Amino acid sequence: MDASEFDCWMRAELDAVERALQRWVSADAPAGLGDAMRYGVLDGGKRLRPLLVLAACEAAAGDRNAALRASVAVELIHAYSLIHDDMPCMDNDVLRRGKPTVHVQFGEAQAMLAGDAMQALAFEVLTPAASDADAFAPALQARLCGLLARAAGHEGMAGGQAIDLASIGRPLDERQLRDMHRRKTGALLQASVLMGAACGELPLKGWEALSQYGAAIGLAFQVVDDILDVTQESETLGKTAGKDEHLNKPTYVSVLGLDGARKQAQTLRERAQAALASGGLRHTARLSWLADLVVDRTC
Amino acid sequence: MDASEFDCWMRAELDAVERALQRWVSADAPAGLGDAMRYGVLDGGKRLRPLLVLAACEAAAGDRNAALRASVAVELIHAYSLIHDDMPCMDNDVLRRGKPTVHVQFGEAQAMLAGDAMQALAFEVLTPAASDADAFAPALQARLCGLLARAAGHEGMAGGQAIDLASIGRPLDERQLRDMHRRKTGALLQASVLMGAACGELPLKGWEALSQYGAAIGLAFQVVDDILDVTQESETLGKTAGKDEHLNKPTYVSVLGLDGARKQAQTLRERAQAALASGGLRHTARLSWLADLVVDRTC
Repeated sequence: MDASEFDCWMRAELDAVERALQRWVSADAPAGLGDAMRYGVLDGGKRLRPLLVLAACEAAAGDRNAALRASVAVELIHAYSLIHDDMPCMDNDVLRRGKPTVHVQFGEAQAMLAGDAMQALAFEVLTPAASDADAFAPALQARLCGLLARAAGHEGMAGGQAIDLASIGRPLDERQLRDMHRRKTGALLQASVLMGAACGELPLKGWEALSQYGAAIGLAFQVVDDILDVTQESETLGKTAGKDEHLNKPTYVSVLGLDGARKQAQTLRERAQAALASGGLRHTARLSWLADLVVDRTC
Repeated sequence: MDASEFDCWMRAELDAVERALQRWVSADAPAGLGDAMRYGVLDGGKRLRPLLVLAACEAAAGDRNAALRASVAVELIHAYSLIHDDMPCMDNDVLRRGKPTVHVQFGEAQAMLAGDAMQALAFEVLTPAASDADAFAPALQARLCGLLARAAGHEGMAGGQAIDLASIGRPLDERQLRDMHRRKTGALLQASVLMGAACGELPLKGWEALSQYGAAIGLAFQVVDDILDVTQESETLGKTAGKDEHLNKPTYVSVLGLDGARKQAQTLRERAQAALASGGLRHTARLSWLADLVVDRTC
């Protein structure tokens, strides 16, 4: 697969994900709640997690309908976490994806509710009724719910956020920083890969390879985030640059230096590629390209 | 079944629910998050929703292990909604279950995260691994996740909260008020009954009877809440009394008057009892007592 084939695949999948989100995040929710939810998740974002779900599903020759719902569910969890993270009691940020944050646009109460409703919606999307045209096996529904809940909760994303909160202004060593990010960002990225893989049936070796791949790119994503936070302008990022330093948060750049962080990102990319090669899997080219995308991105 | 048998059953079940919550809401979550979660859900609350799950499971001769997990999951959703609802951007309340609210005790950011993590934990509890001693069928796991997600999200609780927010200081008629409460409180109470019922295998007639029962007591619960808000002291309620009037929120008392609201509660009790009698179900005595408990409670 060359770059233009990958690019073509990615455009088609991004379009499919956008249509699925449009369908699922309906404006029907009462009293302006639907508007806040749609504002928070539509028309923006790199959609990296949905792409990982869909590419991992292909590597596992899995059920496309299930993977499309899973990709919507992970993106809903990711988007809700951004809405809550931006609120005044957390990072107090006013800019996200180049637009005013949800609480600036709709008020704090509606922003909190929109996030709450989006987390519930993620699990609703994963549990289609048998009568739905794109229904899939209840056992897979349960599996996907379990993977997503564990990645989103106290063992994963929410736990990482709590460590992040507690670490402001406190020095962390590399091990502590890695633990924080493994939970805060890594868990959901890894879960994206595993949810896609769960849509097929992989031997244990293939499953473990994708799990290692997911862990490596999950960490790489955060290392690159920390690098971009100091090397890019807010305009390019679509969010406030230099925020971590301003908040006195420990980052890979503050712990390893800029060069050290860049080396770390390369090491993680290589680890991800090696994991892919070790699993005896076919059709891993798209996952391989996605690992490069994570490390080489500029926003 | 007489009152003392019911009382004995209730005490034993409350004890079982408390132990299950103690087990599930562990203090392991990092950086104080576990403490905030435990503070928000342990040692307090009437545990009405868990009792409804367990009684409905008995009426359906269902799987006790599954129902116990379901009862923990609904209580986690209920408790998280109280934490978020009490925050300054929502009701700004400082007292709950006779204690300072979670954000007063732990700060707003930790309170928001604790609520977020509790919602995720609810779905984690519903999806045990096959290796867990109390595992149950994946198809039932998926069913329970689906029922809970729909009751918690924009069609249910979060949607009702949004209507509640938008209705402050605006007159609602009885129909609008009923729609708000059907979502805000009713959906999760009804889901508690249906999740318990789903743990067994009921014919459609029995399922529909329990669904009607759940809808009636869901609404009755809120009518009684509105009555208690004007007739009881904060000390008895364990939360701030007179809050709705103070916030200029429409209630059943403001719309129907105190006598009208009391009549409405009786009508709903009768509707719940009639539904129970119509379903061809055995073992509905505990559900019948719970309907009385909802209407006759004083706090």
